[in-house]
Amino acid sequence: MRAVVFKEPFAVAVDDVPEPSLKHPNDVIVKVTSACICGSDLHMYEGRTAAEPGIVFGHENMGLIEEVGDGVKTLKVGDRVSMPFNVACGFCKNCQRGFTGFCTTVNPGFAGGAYGYVAMGPWVGGQAEYIQVPHADFNCLPLPAGDEHEADFAMLADIFPTGYHGAELADVSPGESVAVFGAGPVGVMAAYSCVIRGAAEVYCVDHVQERLDKAAGIGAVPINFDEGDAVQQIKDRRNGEGVDKGIDAVGYQAAAPGSSAAGGEQEEVPNIVLNQLIDVVSPTGALGIPGLYVPSDPGGVDENAKKGALSINFGQLFEKGLRLGTGQCNVKKYNAYLRDLIIAEKANPGFVVSHQVPLEDAADAYDKFDKRIDGYTKVILNP
Amino acid sequence: MRAVVFKEPFAVAVDDVPEPSLKHPNDVIVKVTSACICGSDLHMYEGRTAAEPGIVFGHENMGLIEEVGDGVKTLKVGDRVSMPFNVACGFCKNCQRGFTGFCTTVNPGFAGGAYGYVAMGPWVGGQAEYIQVPHADFNCLPLPAGDEHEADFAMLADIFPTGYHGAELADVSPGESVAVFGAGPVGVMAAYSCVIRGAAEVYCVDHVQERLDKAAGIGAVPINFDEGDAVQQIKDRRNGEGVDKGIDAVGYQAAAPGSSAAGGEQEEVPNIVLNQLIDVVSPTGALGIPGLYVPSDPGGVDENAKKGALSINFGQLFEKGLRLGTGQCNVKKYNAYLRDLIIAEKANPGFVVSHQVPLEDAADAYDKFDKRIDGYTKVILNP
Amino acid sequence: MRAVVFKEPFAVAVDDVPEPSLKHPNDVIVKVTSACICGSDLHMYEGRTAAEPGIVFGHENMGLIEEVGDGVKTLKVGDRVSMPFNVACGFCKNCQRGFTGFCTTVNPGFAGGAYGYVAMGPWVGGQAEYIQVPHADFNCLPLPAGDEHEADFAMLADIFPTGYHGAELADVSPGESVAVFGAGPVGVMAAYSCVIRGAAEVYCVDHVQERLDKAAGIGAVPINFDEGDAVQQIKDRRNGEGVDKGIDAVGYQAAAPGSSAAGGEQEEVPNIVLNQLIDVVSPTGALGIPGLYVPSDPGGVDENAKKGALSINFGQLFEKGLRLGTGQCNVKKYNAYLRDLIIAEKANPGFVVSHQVPLEDAADAYDKFDKRIDGYTKVILNP
Amino acid sequence: MRAVVFKEPFAVAVDDVPEPSLKHPNDVIVKVTSACICGSDLHMYEGRTAAEPGIVFGHENMGLIEEVGDGVKTLKVGDRVSMPFNVACGFCKNCQRGFTGFCTTVNPGFAGGAYGYVAMGPWVGGQAEYIQVPHADFNCLPLPAGDEHEADFAMLADIFPTGYHGAELADVSPGESVAVFGAGPVGVMAAYSCVIRGAAEVYCVDHVQERLDKAAGIGAVPINFDEGDAVQQIKDRRNGEGVDKGIDAVGYQAAAPGSSAAGGEQEEVPNIVLNQLIDVVSPTGALGIPGLYVPSDPGGVDENAKKGALSINFGQLFEKGLRLGTGQCNVKKYNAYLRDLIIAEKANPGFVVSHQVPLEDAADAYDKFDKRIDGYTKVILNP
Repeated sequence: MRAVVFKEPFAVAVDDVPEPSLKHPNDVIVKVTSACICGSDLHMYEGRTAAEPGIVFGHENMGLIEEVGDGVKTLKVGDRVSMPFNVACGFCKNCQRGFTGFCTTVNPGFAGGAYGYVAMGPWVGGQAEYIQVPHADFNCLPLPAGDEHEADFAMLADIFPTGYHGAELADVSPGESVAVFGAGPVGVMAAYSCVIRGAAEVYCVDHVQERLDKAAGIGAVPINFDEGDAVQQIKDRRNGEGVDKGIDAVGYQAAAPGSSAAGGEQEEVPNIVLNQLIDVVSPTGALGIPGLYVPSDPGGVDENAKKGALSINFGQLFEKGLRLGTGQCNVKKYNAYLRDLIIAEKANPGFVVSHQVPLEDAADAYDKFDKRIDGYTKVILNP
Repeated sequence: MRAVVFKEPFAVAVDDVPEPSLKHPNDVIVKVTSACICGSDLHMYEGRTAAEPGIVFGHENMGLIEEVGDGVKTLKVGDRVSMPFNVACGFCKNCQRGFTGFCTTVNPGFAGGAYGYVAMGPWVGGQAEYIQVPHADFNCLPLPAGDEHEADFAMLADIFPTGYHGAELADVSPGESVAVFGAGPVGVMAAYSCVIRGAAEVYCVDHVQERLDKAAGIGAVPINFDEGDAVQQIKDRRNGEGVDKGIDAVGYQAAAPGSSAAGGEQEEVPNIVLNQLIDVVSPTGALGIPGLYVPSDPGGVDENAKKGALSINFGQLFEKGLRLGTGQCNVKKYNAYLRDLIIAEKANPGFVVSHQVPLEDAADAYDKFDKRIDGYTKVILNP
Repeated sequence: MRAVVFKEPFAVAVDDVPEPSLKHPNDVIVKVTSACICGSDLHMYEGRTAAEPGIVFGHENMGLIEEVGDGVKTLKVGDRVSMPFNVACGFCKNCQRGFTGFCTTVNPGFAGGAYGYVAMGPWVGGQAEYIQVPHADFNCLPLPAGDEHEADFAMLADIFPTGYHGAELADVSPGESVAVFGAGPVGVMAAYSCVIRGAAEVYCVDHVQERLDKAAGIGAVPINFDEGDAVQQIKDRRNGEGVDKGIDAVGYQAAAPGSSAAGGEQEEVPNIVLNQLIDVVSPTGALGIPGLYVPSDPGGVDENAKKGALSINFGQLFEKGLRLGTGQCNVKKYNAYLRDLIIAEKANPGFVVSHQVPLEDAADAYDKFDKRIDGYTKVILNP
Repeated sequence: MRAVVFKEPFAVAVDDVPEPSLKHPNDVIVKVTSACICGSDLHMYEGRTAAEPGIVFGHENMGLIEEVGDGVKTLKVGDRVSMPFNVACGFCKNCQRGFTGFCTTVNPGFAGGAYGYVAMGPWVGGQAEYIQVPHADFNCLPLPAGDEHEADFAMLADIFPTGYHGAELADVSPGESVAVFGAGPVGVMAAYSCVIRGAAEVYCVDHVQERLDKAAGIGAVPINFDEGDAVQQIKDRRNGEGVDKGIDAVGYQAAAPGSSAAGGEQEEVPNIVLNQLIDVVSPTGALGIPGLYVPSDPGGVDENAKKGALSINFGQLFEKGLRLGTGQCNVKKYNAYLRDLIIAEKANPGFVVSHQVPLEDAADAYDKFDKRIDGYTKVILNP
């Protein structure tokens, strides 16, 4: 079958690879209908991880059940399903408490697995015609038959739940004010989730105009951090007050104010968003941090950053009595509810998709998405 | 009246000061029966804060109502009461949500007030014969008449709730394993609170033998960090596993392993406890941080520490999906429940008290407590 | 001053009564700008309670501060404020935990007080020119100066928070399905609150067309229980499935299907809504019950109903593992957040108001509202 | 193999039945080492259900893995395991949210399954030499190898978690006061769980002296309801105050005060415990109801009781703003934590066991347990 294969930094190709087969009674094989490119795929693509050539990318997958293992109870051939990017068993200590992003079964020696991602276990990516899904009763979310809402549902594997996770970690509640840092796909989904949860005011901080426009389009207040200190801009709009809650949808590759947003040119300041959040959130508030931080970053800006150690204004954090939650999204905790919002037409997260292209055009799509050119902000590959 | 007055670094005296009087209809005057010296009083005593000579110390106060303002509804002369170290109004945005440690009314321009503490508002300390208590209906916790449990109840103003707050911030639940860093008064109270909440295993890390003995006495497992890496010692006892939850009852004045525990001699490593907690707590776990961190520390070990910026292993924190809660204890959220445990004889926190001395002996008590000599670990002053 | 005075069943008059004065240092006097008539005022109006002639009605009050007691800290003359219908002290065991509807201070011998309501304490109602507000720092919610959003803000004293309370008691969360019984003012506010909280599907059950239209107008699915069994109608729309959550915004004066909705003619079946909720909510679900049930109802349909004992399908409730929450709304828990939604123009609850009339027209308004004629569904009196 | 088979009301026999075999790749076969008789087995034994002759009883099972299906990942032959009485899949909507007592997979058409119980699915009971366990990775809780704590661990399948569930449903927290109705095995486990969770005062209501003695032995205050109104006795001990929380560990077969506690002679008043709880719990409190109520009871005391409809003082419940939670325990939510308390020797629930007898003596044990003679209160059968 055809699949997106990592060749070397800044190069993928659509190659022939072996078709997956049922390896365990609880497996299914899914014929992929939509697979998105994720910002975190670019970490591998740019050679910023230990990913080896040959890996098949793709952890944002949906499709139709093609083949069903003997042990599977609730799925049948033809069912339309979405798969969380987390691979999870459903029965380990973490999964049974809902922490499916930290499954201890599927990636021995580590808490957490994913499709098509370095160090996340043996699970082949879904930017391909077919994908093997283990623990299928647990990992497949049923969708309505047909092809309605394909782009909306494609967001259920990762970025809609991941954005929502930010709002959940920060416990964003009706009537509150929130500052979301980052208006990329996850950031916009986080802001969107805050709106869905009934926030009164949502500020969305970025310096790319298209992104800020997307944020404004869902009712958030866009804050361009190249136009002045983001924290001050927000406080100025609130009579000097901070906000109740904050979300970091940027992570360690945060850009310095004024540096270019396009490609690898911008100056990286890995702790800037965290410290701005500590500054802008009012005492007793909470921070949700779905944005990625890593314990080992060979491309880090200094020795500390290389091992994931950041200078945090902990004294201020403590004085304000803030709390914070971090980590990969446990997609399965949210995806059924978000699906139902889409079905009820109360949410249409597909608005963040900029391009849908055939799987065969993946190399070009990666190139443009990585360079943020031609408006490439969120791409769906259709095998 | 007589009161403990700060004279200069490493010197307090018991002086005559004016008696307090009712300044507002909601005030009461309390005749102090017990006032403890707190570890945080030593920050001022050692000249490590901006505290000016003349300040009357004392935020862990209890006593008998002496005089009642016109607006007070539920208190009468002679009532025995405990006052949370936080001064709080009961009606501001933070108080009404239970965050009484972050009251915006009693210390204008700052979220949080306390008795007898630098920068915590105009409230005179209670290491004295009498104390003025504002918003008295809100700030006075009624106690049973008489003098039973005086030492136990004296712990209700600060260290028992503060230790308990650590367990609450970490959401310590029945059957869990917990690592508590610090076995000083707050650390032992945190470990004790974990035991009360039904934790299965509580590890308590320190390097002072008397403290470790106190921890062992309540059923915790003592870990001496001078005898080997604390994290490894805990994991070794758990077949290589980490713990579910962690509590930092040390704060920024953390000692390097092997450095002396007595007085100012020990080497300070302000981020060591935080990073060890991140290491020892298992993925999906939580950290409760009642230990003090400050945004400005003139005596900090380096330029970053001086402004409260610490190097935190944030990559590891994120990878594990940990959450953490910080800040001053909201005493009023817990003190009635902890009082009822004392009355029911299910808790006797007074076991941490090493000395009860007359108020007039305060200078000597401060000196010995600061030097940790003659077994001074927790002192009650009796006016 | 002029005020609405209860004369006898089915008769109120606007009379001269003494102006209120400051009785306690923590009081303020508020010049009332808007006071609503509540459905629960009709219980007294219809003679269905122990209310004696002479009582001044009105617990849904807002206005401008006219006079300020010596003990008040945060309010000044001219401030625009909303008062929760619950009178509360802010410092009793219940208030300090947020249960301001169950204050033990303001109505001795009972948990809970209100303005202008039988058995709810000595607090005179606000359908008048002025009102005395005790514990004013706690009981007054500041509003933006001016007269914007007057009708929206008038909903903050009771029905918007009370409807929201139903959603909170049922823990309505994003993506869930909810059945709200009752589309009167509280029911519509409950449905509206579910929409604000991100529910995917909200069903609203009533048999008055205007009410069902209001529900439809905010995106709820109207269900007319005169047109077939309400439970079955909902399940039919959901492929035979029940809903995640249910809200009872009707209470004990529930109407039998097919009986007239106008006035006192309809047949009362006090347990019908509770048992229908038990039927329609799926296993593991939750019920929020803000609708009023009383322990003593002289007009009850039978001996059991007269003492508040209802036949509940408890076996079914248990088999489904349902949970439920009841009781008067703790307005202060929500009103600041709901106010901020109004200011941000994310909520405009004033849409439920059918009439705004001068205070002097109160008798006519009571008559028409009680008879549900001329479209009287929610009335604001303007003194 | 040998197994306890239901023959007719008041008669079981130990018969030869077919050995179970692996029927699905996710199954294991467990060699039973301990299987308890549960009070709910007596419902079937007494002919009070639709259970047909031939059914093999036993849902409180533990043992050693004998055989392992192809799909099982984490278990191997010889592992010592406890099985929750609930059979659950781990992946349905309810299981994935932790409601394993309401699994929609294992008992088609109903939410919830169990071993050896009428209407709870096809799962053969474990009062036998071997038992088939489906979804074994999910349903088997690993225990330490060996035979230590066998009686304690035998409580993990049902009564320890079920008692704990009562405390959880009532949200029993440190320092609170609780009234537990029923001091049978579940009631004592509920009281024990309250003690473990740090309750300040636990009252335990029954009228069987041995049971009351067991309650007293763990630090609860025994209340004999034959010696005066239980509610009044509790309030008298609390200066007229009610309690914070209440637990119903009795259910619908509640005895009238003064009626005999032995066997079927006592007068049944199915709503008495619920209404006493509503009476004794203070406003804003909560009720946990693990005691069984059924929607169909052929032996009910009247027509309403036969269909599970009970007269509840709902007016009083509402006026107090109480909340309540009901239903079968979701064992898997708690059993790993309770196991760890046993391993750490912080809990030894085996103290409730009165008799351990060979499987072959089951008929005699059922007879004596049903008659509550010779001190039979909790029996373990050892195959």
